[in-house]
Amino acid sequence: MNVATKVASDDLAAEMEQLGRGARAGVEALGLATTDRKNEALRAAARELGARRGELLAANRIDMDSAAEREIAPSLLDRLRLDDGRIDAMARGLEEIAALDDPVGQVLASWPRPNGLSISRVSVPLGVIGIIYESRPNVTADAGGLCLKSGNAAILRGGSESFHSSRAIVACLHAGLAAAGLPENAIQLVPTTDRAAVGMLLTMTDHVDIIVPRGGKSLIERVQRESRIPVIAHLEGLCHVYIDEHADLAMAHDVTVNAKMRRTGICGATETLLVDRVVAAHALPPIIDSLSGAGCELRGDEATCALDPRVVPATEDDWRTEYLDAILSIRQVDGLDGAIAHIGAYGSGHTDSIITADTARAETFLGKVDSAIVLHNASTQFADGGEFGMGAEIGISTGRLHARGPVGVEQLTTYKYVVRGAGQIRP
Amino acid sequence: MNVATKVASDDLAAEMEQLGRGARAGVEALGLATTDRKNEALRAAARELGARRGELLAANRIDMDSAAEREIAPSLLDRLRLDDGRIDAMARGLEEIAALDDPVGQVLASWPRPNGLSISRVSVPLGVIGIIYESRPNVTADAGGLCLKSGNAAILRGGSESFHSSRAIVACLHAGLAAAGLPENAIQLVPTTDRAAVGMLLTMTDHVDIIVPRGGKSLIERVQRESRIPVIAHLEGLCHVYIDEHADLAMAHDVTVNAKMRRTGICGATETLLVDRVVAAHALPPIIDSLSGAGCELRGDEATCALDPRVVPATEDDWRTEYLDAILSIRQVDGLDGAIAHIGAYGSGHTDSIITADTARAETFLGKVDSAIVLHNASTQFADGGEFGMGAEIGISTGRLHARGPVGVEQLTTYKYVVRGAGQIRP
Repeated sequence: MNVATKVASDDLAAEMEQLGRGARAGVEALGLATTDRKNEALRAAARELGARRGELLAANRIDMDSAAEREIAPSLLDRLRLDDGRIDAMARGLEEIAALDDPVGQVLASWPRPNGLSISRVSVPLGVIGIIYESRPNVTADAGGLCLKSGNAAILRGGSESFHSSRAIVACLHAGLAAAGLPENAIQLVPTTDRAAVGMLLTMTDHVDIIVPRGGKSLIERVQRESRIPVIAHLEGLCHVYIDEHADLAMAHDVTVNAKMRRTGICGATETLLVDRVVAAHALPPIIDSLSGAGCELRGDEATCALDPRVVPATEDDWRTEYLDAILSIRQVDGLDGAIAHIGAYGSGHTDSIITADTARAETFLGKVDSAIVLHNASTQFADGGEFGMGAEIGISTGRLHARGPVGVEQLTTYKYVVRGAGQIRP
Repeated sequence: MNVATKVASDDLAAEMEQLGRGARAGVEALGLATTDRKNEALRAAARELGARRGELLAANRIDMDSAAEREIAPSLLDRLRLDDGRIDAMARGLEEIAALDDPVGQVLASWPRPNGLSISRVSVPLGVIGIIYESRPNVTADAGGLCLKSGNAAILRGGSESFHSSRAIVACLHAGLAAAGLPENAIQLVPTTDRAAVGMLLTMTDHVDIIVPRGGKSLIERVQRESRIPVIAHLEGLCHVYIDEHADLAMAHDVTVNAKMRRTGICGATETLLVDRVVAAHALPPIIDSLSGAGCELRGDEATCALDPRVVPATEDDWRTEYLDAILSIRQVDGLDGAIAHIGAYGSGHTDSIITADTARAETFLGKVDSAIVLHNASTQFADGGEFGMGAEIGISTGRLHARGPVGVEQLTTYKYVVRGAGQIRP
């Protein structure tokens, strides 16, 4: 490993402990910071990203050269790369986070009691959030900014290939915090690429309140397996479109093509198309034409293969696969119940859509499909915090506890009960 | 172990698997059940508890005899005992749960998007909840009823000493479910007292969505350590009252005595009294008189011991101890900041109260003390879902994720996003 110092295990433990203590102190200051001060820090950090463009590109060059030597995949190299456009996008992202409403200090509910006590539920930061992600430098700015706005301290651990880039970005975030008079330890980067640091972070129950992994399935699964700290995880998006017997077939075509092909690498991309078998012969041919023409590989059940030679046979594994690529599996089902049963058996509880003109059938689907996001007559690609009007997000939770669906600044808070009395005692 | 059959480990695993599959089927039916039907099941179960009084008492007699033979502590024997009053209380508890608003299917928020999409956040059940508790038969009825109302399937695992009592209570819950046409597997009791079943329950990630432990610190800690499933835990209530320089001393006296002595064994009982040292000589003597007179042992710092010979020296451990008994530790602190620092260092994030006539100082305390419940001029014994107007509760969460403070039926739900469109695709 040539990108950072390997430190001995004892030293590493001490260093992680210090990081944790620093974060705890940071969250105390940040949790009480005013909205203006947090926004000032975000905007100053955005300016720093622009001002230190040269340093950022130089740091990224070190990471890119080192990654190229190790012959990592071109798609990973692309994610790792910084350029002027991407630096501008990070800065704009921080400004957008500054423009969001402050999620902290909101009175979520308030009610009086017969004994005169007044009870309020008030939003507060979650605490110290450990964020573990792959070698995408922009996540450093996004995650740091979202935590800052929501009053949480962040301990960031990016992929080792992006270490120098992330360090340069964190320096900009620190400059922003300092400019606003906030402590720099509110946002910290794990200062080593030693993989043992991840295991330590996942067991620092005294210093870290929540772990948010962001990346591929193997990363998330490792984190869920090893963490002794609660995890908000985005596992996978095995999304479905179901074309009902009563669908407008032109709409079904347009939504399906968009749901699959607008961007194939995002979690809201559709992976499996379900079609009521009574309309399959009408509904599928134009969809197959468009997708095949756009370079999408099609894998179908027997009945669908029989419709068109461009459809190759799907295996059982296909129904369980998040392709994140220009591949679609297609299955004909026995009506609405068949679609709901397929999604229940194979779906990942992320995002699923029904196309139908029959409102009652749509409501049955929306009620029975147990996913974070269920849609009627709309593309699964809308599964996105920004598209929901929630602003930037740190991911889309497929878990059931705390946050489900897009995780924005509001989902990075918890609440406390504030009770005001006049000397009440309990009888 | 003489209370139930020990089954071989393979058989046990198969049995637990079957329990899990049954619960998953149960939650599908229960999640879609109408409010009326769920309430009918709760009321029918309440009637069954009354009707089967003889069976319940006979089953409890087996448990009590077996526990007496094993010479378990009198306090545990008392918790294990059923009598007419306790059976009536369980039945009344189920009727009260029936009277609560249905927490499922509530539109928590709803907004339109510029592209015409309509987005709603709708409450849904959490799923399958595994509840692990000690030998208190009434928890079987409470927990089963709360899960039923919130549309969750429950897998109940009570302490082995209460096995026969719990089984008889679950039979009443099953009769209630059946009377309402709901599946009995919505509420299941782990059918063995084999301790290995708990370990299996904690790792059934496919079948169980949430674990709720209810009991003493060692049980909770074991569950938090071993569970591979998210846990909503109530760890401990190390609650404080802080008497500020500007407190009404009569109010301080009354609230402190109530907070400590109303019931000493509940999590909202105060364990440590903090007093601004500038008023200690005035504030403490009447409190010491009352508490000492009521049989409360008092352990104080040096300055407090100097005030009264009935106060014995406290050790560092005292500040960290949840007595759950008629014992109070007392410490004089340097004003508000000293109190906040002590609570931050030693508190358990449960419930803390300030007594002061100065509103600004109260707001500082309410803002800076990072506990689930913070009170001004009121007794910590109000830390209770019923006192908050939330109805029955399954515990008070000291965790930060999902639920904080009292966990009632509303906290046993999550949400999904329902998006209604007219063919929208994402540009």
